Amino acid sequence: MRMMAQDAWRRLGDSRVARLATATSSGRPQVVPITFVVDADRIFTAVDAKPKTTRDLQRVRNVRKNPRVAVLADHYDDDWSSLWWVRADGTASVIDDPRAMEAPIRLLAGRYPQYQDQPPGGPVIAIEVDHVTGWAAS
Amino acid sequence: MRMMAQDAWRRLGDSRVARLATATSSGRPQVVPITFVVDADRIFTAVDAKPKTTRDLQRVRNVRKNPRVAVLADHYDDDWSSLWWVRADGTASVIDDPRAMEAPIRLLAGRYPQYQDQPPGGPVIAIEVDHVTGWAAS
Repeated sequence: MRMMAQDAWRRLGDSRVARLATATSSGRPQVVPITFVVDADRIFTAVDAKPKTTRDLQRVRNVRKNPRVAVLADHYDDDWSSLWWVRADGTASVIDDPRAMEAPIRLLAGRYPQYQDQPPGGPVIAIEVDHVTGWAAS
Repeated sequence: MRMMAQDAWRRLGDSRVARLATATSSGRPQVVPITFVVDADRIFTAVDAKPKTTRDLQRVRNVRKNPRVAVLADHYDDDWSSLWWVRADGTASVIDDPRAMEAPIRLLAGRYPQYQDQPPGGPVIAIEVDHVTGWAAS
């Protein structure tokens, strides 16, 4: 059944992991798992400090050229009556100015203790959500 | 660390759920959780029998117009040393001929007992994987 927006936001905000889908300007999709934090109608996620291959930064290149993104949180269980998912569609921007990254990284570190010892190096991807959709089996 | 292709395929094939990212021809991404089965270098997933809103069939419309897709399986744990993900990039097609759907639906029902009682109505999305990438924290 369709989910009320408030319920969808709550489930998304409570999820520890989500998946960020981006696309190249020619429409080739990419999807990666992300840690994230919800702040009002925005979602923040950051590229981690640990070394990434060029391929992993595809998400940043995609967002710079094509800001449309989708973020999915879902719950799977072999008992299909407990399945649910929430998707947030929005417009993303890349924040790479160190001062502008401070507030979102502080929010992320508040949510993930791992980031307190080793804050993500960035850049940060900020997503203005314009639509949230959810579905739950029961 | 980067994952060997064989390990990536194994982890993908063992996952009970994955996420399918598609994009409209204008590059707007969409992502949904999917049940799926791996068969050689193909991935099959089906639209379930249960009623779907038009929005949920966006994946089928997207694939018909833009066959590039990405499939992600990942593992999250608050112990970040156990994180991993696998992504398969490929080209998808829509199978809606009832006879052509039989074999993939049989494979899906072999993997998910839930489908034995209530086979997915389809259509089936068949993905020819051309590239698999994986990462594991340890």
